[in-house]
Amino acid sequence: MKDLFSNDTIVALSTPPGVGGIGVIRLSGPEAIRISEKILPGLNLQAAKSHTLHFGIVRDGDTVLDEAVAGLFKAPSSFTCEDVVEISCHGSPYILQKVLQLLISKGARLAKPGEFTMRAFFNGRFDLSQAEAVSDLIASETQAAHNLAINQMRGGFSGELKILREELMHFASLLELELDFSEEDVEFANRPQLISLLEKMQLKIKRLCESFRLGNVIKNGVSAVIAGRPNAGKSTLLNAMLNEERAIVSDIPGTTRDTIEENLTINGIAFRLTDTAGIREAADAIEKQGVERTMQKIEQAAIVIYLFDADGFSPDEVAEDLSKLNKNKGIPVLPVANKVDKMEDPNKFNEIEGISLVSAKNGYGIDALKKQLYDTVIQGGNIHDGVILSNARHYEALEATLKNLEAAKKGIENKLSGELVASDIRSALNHLGEITGTVTTDDLLGNIFGKFCIGK
Amino acid sequence: MKDLFSNDTIVALSTPPGVGGIGVIRLSGPEAIRISEKILPGLNLQAAKSHTLHFGIVRDGDTVLDEAVAGLFKAPSSFTCEDVVEISCHGSPYILQKVLQLLISKGARLAKPGEFTMRAFFNGRFDLSQAEAVSDLIASETQAAHNLAINQMRGGFSGELKILREELMHFASLLELELDFSEEDVEFANRPQLISLLEKMQLKIKRLCESFRLGNVIKNGVSAVIAGRPNAGKSTLLNAMLNEERAIVSDIPGTTRDTIEENLTINGIAFRLTDTAGIREAADAIEKQGVERTMQKIEQAAIVIYLFDADGFSPDEVAEDLSKLNKNKGIPVLPVANKVDKMEDPNKFNEIEGISLVSAKNGYGIDALKKQLYDTVIQGGNIHDGVILSNARHYEALEATLKNLEAAKKGIENKLSGELVASDIRSALNHLGEITGTVTTDDLLGNIFGKFCIGK
Repeated sequence: MKDLFSNDTIVALSTPPGVGGIGVIRLSGPEAIRISEKILPGLNLQAAKSHTLHFGIVRDGDTVLDEAVAGLFKAPSSFTCEDVVEISCHGSPYILQKVLQLLISKGARLAKPGEFTMRAFFNGRFDLSQAEAVSDLIASETQAAHNLAINQMRGGFSGELKILREELMHFASLLELELDFSEEDVEFANRPQLISLLEKMQLKIKRLCESFRLGNVIKNGVSAVIAGRPNAGKSTLLNAMLNEERAIVSDIPGTTRDTIEENLTINGIAFRLTDTAGIREAADAIEKQGVERTMQKIEQAAIVIYLFDADGFSPDEVAEDLSKLNKNKGIPVLPVANKVDKMEDPNKFNEIEGISLVSAKNGYGIDALKKQLYDTVIQGGNIHDGVILSNARHYEALEATLKNLEAAKKGIENKLSGELVASDIRSALNHLGEITGTVTTDDLLGNIFGKFCIGK
Repeated sequence: MKDLFSNDTIVALSTPPGVGGIGVIRLSGPEAIRISEKILPGLNLQAAKSHTLHFGIVRDGDTVLDEAVAGLFKAPSSFTCEDVVEISCHGSPYILQKVLQLLISKGARLAKPGEFTMRAFFNGRFDLSQAEAVSDLIASETQAAHNLAINQMRGGFSGELKILREELMHFASLLELELDFSEEDVEFANRPQLISLLEKMQLKIKRLCESFRLGNVIKNGVSAVIAGRPNAGKSTLLNAMLNEERAIVSDIPGTTRDTIEENLTINGIAFRLTDTAGIREAADAIEKQGVERTMQKIEQAAIVIYLFDADGFSPDEVAEDLSKLNKNKGIPVLPVANKVDKMEDPNKFNEIEGISLVSAKNGYGIDALKKQLYDTVIQGGNIHDGVILSNARHYEALEATLKNLEAAKKGIENKLSGELVASDIRSALNHLGEITGTVTTDDLLGNIFGKFCIGK
């Protein structure tokens, strides 16, 4: 496991890329202080106390690169538990890149994504699910997502799992003990108590698993694609939902070619709205590319807003389009009639299930459509309910745990040998341990920290 | 003047917006420490030493917003010479916005752009041209621009001006003294020496002014627009120059609708390359919008690459297009023949002055075209020559100074009254003083610092 853990000194830009007042470059490792001193001549960081700030001039030989402030955290009192120096430069991408290069030339190595947090995990600062929450916390864009992540980072989720795991561990050790005395046919582990524990765990874990769909939506947002025939008013609908003139609109069918994506938050849930080129037999090669991109987007969507011209379309045509769209592996499709201000019979589309009536042009029905989007996604889930599972990896581990627990329970009920039951329980413990990192592999860690941003 | 200077506590996000490992929120002012303590309960920053770092939990009432590190700089040992606290949070836009709001609710005020640097200027940390260089330094994207800015920030330019100004001040005071004794007809100021000083100053300032065109290019980059008829291969040329598939290309005239902008650095000079919609009688309303945007872009360009199809175009047609483009107020136009691989007579366009031959498709001539772009912009200027002027405000002030110096010189030569000469010299001193901020107005300062990013 410790293959991933190297003992060299890593460096990365820790602030977002781009122009700003300041940008912070972070070093961690045994040489962090010495390497920093090389580019900040005159500073004696070795002799300085931990948790102090030092003004200095960043020099590359005779060239002045910047005036900077170095923040010093000495091991083990740092995020990574190693020596850490944070160099605060002016927020110019050019300077930050030059300073990074300079530090690398002096012996630091560019950190891999998440490598600082991985070191923090290896050095025991927190468990794996807490480390993962650091990444989620940074990525959270809504209050709901933030609450989920900070609760997990501060150990709310780990704590719950830890208690379950310890109770199970207790029984597991009793079972193992029985195996040692297997010839004497004793039962140290009270079977009814064990079954009751297994059932309690199953219930808790099932609830957690059920919360995953919602947690995932809260964490990752929802990709909603606006699709339909040319000139249905898709770009106008996008603009109306965003309340700004984002996409070029015109009366000419096929105005939109490249897909346009924008974010929209509805009641704390982030939606990525995608406006697409209208679907029809393409008139030329460019439009063909556009239509192909649309079809891709529909396949990747979590929800499709099927928009049509209420004035020019018949219910049969709508039903036909919907039946084609519904072939898409169960992705929910919201049928939306646009231009209802021009529609003569207000009941024209009553037969279409779940129909929304809007006029993208004058804003009629837009708020109701947003609410319907939200409701479709949340489906009655209460986002304030206890611990919510939001990590696909945890979900899979818990699903596997559930299976092990069920097998163990069946094994006891069918009076199978203690060895088989113990083996199922060991599997369950392993799967639970993967979540907090008690049990882990290089692949798993590479996977988890590879998703972090560089510099964290 | 001090109207602009308020004594309250300001706050802003100092790192670039976006997602990253960390984001830093900076407070400055008399309440900076007290306000920080309110959101980091348990920390006693009042009692802590300057230049120290403190780990804490950011809380909004009972809600945990983040785990953060506060960096403490006590007045006057800070960038602004006031109490400064820099709070390093996780780099989540959501968290940073929440923490900002929280600090504002506790009594801080959102800083205006450049307000931290303005306070540093007011508190005497540096002069105005140095303060301006802070902004230039942050914005610099190339080595040439960075060298210019850091030289100016560290006082290279101010130093030169200061010496000139002090010499002139010396004579000015002698002249003023003469005025006090005007009835006695004495000459304290040696006229030949004064004329020689004026000429020396004129020469130096002229050189600085001459360096401005270059300095401006180094600092701001060059907007280069690729224009021409539809299907000349403009998008293909953009892709070839960038060496990536940035723009959608097809054989169909009119593929590009929205203008596409990308950055390209040639020998340390930044170019903003703009690909535009082809110019022709527009076939429809969308294309018409595209053509209009193209014409706007051409008007705003510093240099126009006029691209045409070498195979399908005659020299006369090219000359006609060029004569139309050249009407654009002296913006240089580089004629570029594309698709020369298909051209039968290699000398076909020899008559066109400054013609470049390229094949955007196979890359022929692209490097030569880049070199020509660079040469056109630099026009033999040596970018390593001494102090280079890069600030339009300084340029204007120096131009005005030059006029005053010339008037003073003429006045002495024509033996005008000392009062008139003294008045011209006073004007020159004022204009020089504007550059370093010795002489300044609220409008001027508002203008300068308004161009800064927020948080600096």
